[in-house]
Amino acid sequence: MQHYTFPPASSPQTGAERILNACARRPVDSTPIWFMRQAGRCIIEHQEMRKKYDLMTMLKTPELCVQATLMPVQAYGVDAAVIYADIMLPLEAMGVDVAITNSGPVIHNPIRTLQDVEALRIVEPEESVPYILESLRLLRSEIAGKQALIGIAGAPFTLACYLIEGQPSRDYTQAKTLMYSQPEIWAALMEKLSTVTASYLVAQIKAGADVVQLSDSWSGALSPSLYRRYVLPYTQRVFAAVKQTGQPAIHYGASTAALLEAMTEAGGDVIGIDWRMDLDAAWERIGTDHGIQGNLDPTFMVTPWPVLEEQTRDLLRRADGRPGHIFNLGHGVPYATEVDQIRRLVDTVHQLTAVQP
Amino acid sequence: MQHYTFPPASSPQTGAERILNACARRPVDSTPIWFMRQAGRCIIEHQEMRKKYDLMTMLKTPELCVQATLMPVQAYGVDAAVIYADIMLPLEAMGVDVAITNSGPVIHNPIRTLQDVEALRIVEPEESVPYILESLRLLRSEIAGKQALIGIAGAPFTLACYLIEGQPSRDYTQAKTLMYSQPEIWAALMEKLSTVTASYLVAQIKAGADVVQLSDSWSGALSPSLYRRYVLPYTQRVFAAVKQTGQPAIHYGASTAALLEAMTEAGGDVIGIDWRMDLDAAWERIGTDHGIQGNLDPTFMVTPWPVLEEQTRDLLRRADGRPGHIFNLGHGVPYATEVDQIRRLVDTVHQLTAVQP
Repeated sequence: MQHYTFPPASSPQTGAERILNACARRPVDSTPIWFMRQAGRCIIEHQEMRKKYDLMTMLKTPELCVQATLMPVQAYGVDAAVIYADIMLPLEAMGVDVAITNSGPVIHNPIRTLQDVEALRIVEPEESVPYILESLRLLRSEIAGKQALIGIAGAPFTLACYLIEGQPSRDYTQAKTLMYSQPEIWAALMEKLSTVTASYLVAQIKAGADVVQLSDSWSGALSPSLYRRYVLPYTQRVFAAVKQTGQPAIHYGASTAALLEAMTEAGGDVIGIDWRMDLDAAWERIGTDHGIQGNLDPTFMVTPWPVLEEQTRDLLRRADGRPGHIFNLGHGVPYATEVDQIRRLVDTVHQLTAVQP
Repeated sequence: MQHYTFPPASSPQTGAERILNACARRPVDSTPIWFMRQAGRCIIEHQEMRKKYDLMTMLKTPELCVQATLMPVQAYGVDAAVIYADIMLPLEAMGVDVAITNSGPVIHNPIRTLQDVEALRIVEPEESVPYILESLRLLRSEIAGKQALIGIAGAPFTLACYLIEGQPSRDYTQAKTLMYSQPEIWAALMEKLSTVTASYLVAQIKAGADVVQLSDSWSGALSPSLYRRYVLPYTQRVFAAVKQTGQPAIHYGASTAALLEAMTEAGGDVIGIDWRMDLDAAWERIGTDHGIQGNLDPTFMVTPWPVLEEQTRDLLRRADGRPGHIFNLGHGVPYATEVDQIRRLVDTVHQLTAVQP
């Protein structure tokens, strides 16, 4: 299921080649770069689409999803197109009544009992999210290897937190209370979520994704020992399924400064880190047998260019040209970011890291 | 300014002795324990007081403040009384128009320019917070050395974030944007805040506090390199001033898993950590020449007793009886915690760690 054959090192690389090379820690002709949440937030054409269509329509109509996915590629010159999707989508067919609001997903029937978990259905992705797979197929032929196509999914822990809390939460107290107090309900839920997430990512790869990113945005709410007990075995199962496809995976989490070793053990060819760490120190802990993605503080996107440039140079110094670095922010692009600022950052990263032939 | 003489090791220790011994990494007869936000949240008598008096009246009337401070000592049997105060109080006399709401402080005149910073007045604590100092003097004679009396202050970075944002924030984007983009305004603000915070803590010690805790609740929003650049020198100045009094200091922060070394360098005899780390691994990084405070996940307070007990035993195993551990949660006590659960935890920690004479 390897989508590309790699050209000789002297010829200029496509974005897809840069990303896939970085995932395999092979040399690149420039450090690849993309942005989490690159679709939408800062693009005027996207906001105009959002006035015409509601969010669910945009997510579920392949033509619109494809447009939203490609806009940032054209606007910014990034090396990857990341599917315009929401991590809650594969849960709908399980029987989860979810509304995606501006402040995050709201679940009208949150999970609280073993019966709630037992009622969740395991549905194959072709049936639960046919529109995403269709979007990926369209994107694949549209992109034709120029950029890497990235599929995404939420990790079981983060999905479970949403399902139990029912709404965005600061501390996940309800979810963690259930996890600590009723481990058998937790295990049953995580079992189902890891099964669904694994087949969802594998289906995205089959439909054309070159790389997948599993985002465990809330895993930083746990200590390493509790993460290993309640989360790692399930996340590991997801990565094991992806590994069988032969395509690489990125494992992202926020506030994971204590979790890096455990996250790396859970899986992923590349570990995505947030801005709360220094990249060089983090990479040392992750190990040179893994790539690293990140990790500019998103706040720098709304500072004057010289400030952003200085910090970009600092980050590249920390990456030190070692194969395996994918440039990204430590979290999503801030809404207030100017398109020109993003474009200039992309060009600068490419120029500063360009290898002379 | 040392308040106690230590009894021979064979006689039973008071709470104050346990806390002060732990701060100096001397042996204790039981691991000392207290809770951040122990006043108020779970105590019915406190809630009844809050019905009669508004928050500012309670904070600023020494008789009421003393009652609120002592209630948890009586209810829980903890080893320390922590002054019932809000970290924004010393800023009022600087000219900051602050309202303390249920969702946190709201500043009606947030700091945005150099003029705003220049307008802030440096006022001596005797003039700016006489009521806190009076409360401490009353508490000192009331407690009479039975428990340790802990003074508190917000660290310059956390105070600056509040002053710039003007309200509780998730990412401190405005504060960090100013910090990154206008470092001269930032430096001027941090200069003033560290001066005021240092004299505030020293005044609390002079009024009777045995120990002070400097809380940098938001410092985890920065990478170590940016923390060292924008925060460390100012925090260091605060701890240097406290050190001259001869009384010990606790340095607490949340989400600081990447910052431990830098925080330790900034100062404090004891480093307070949140629940996102394993205590043994954190202590190794902090070093055996420092104590450690923490770090049970507050969520365990609302789980059934056997779950809380198992986790408490796990935490004590990680502390391994080494001198210098102060038991605490990784953050404030959850509102939903039962008084009995807290009391039982205190007794259990004391019993499990009791040294046979």
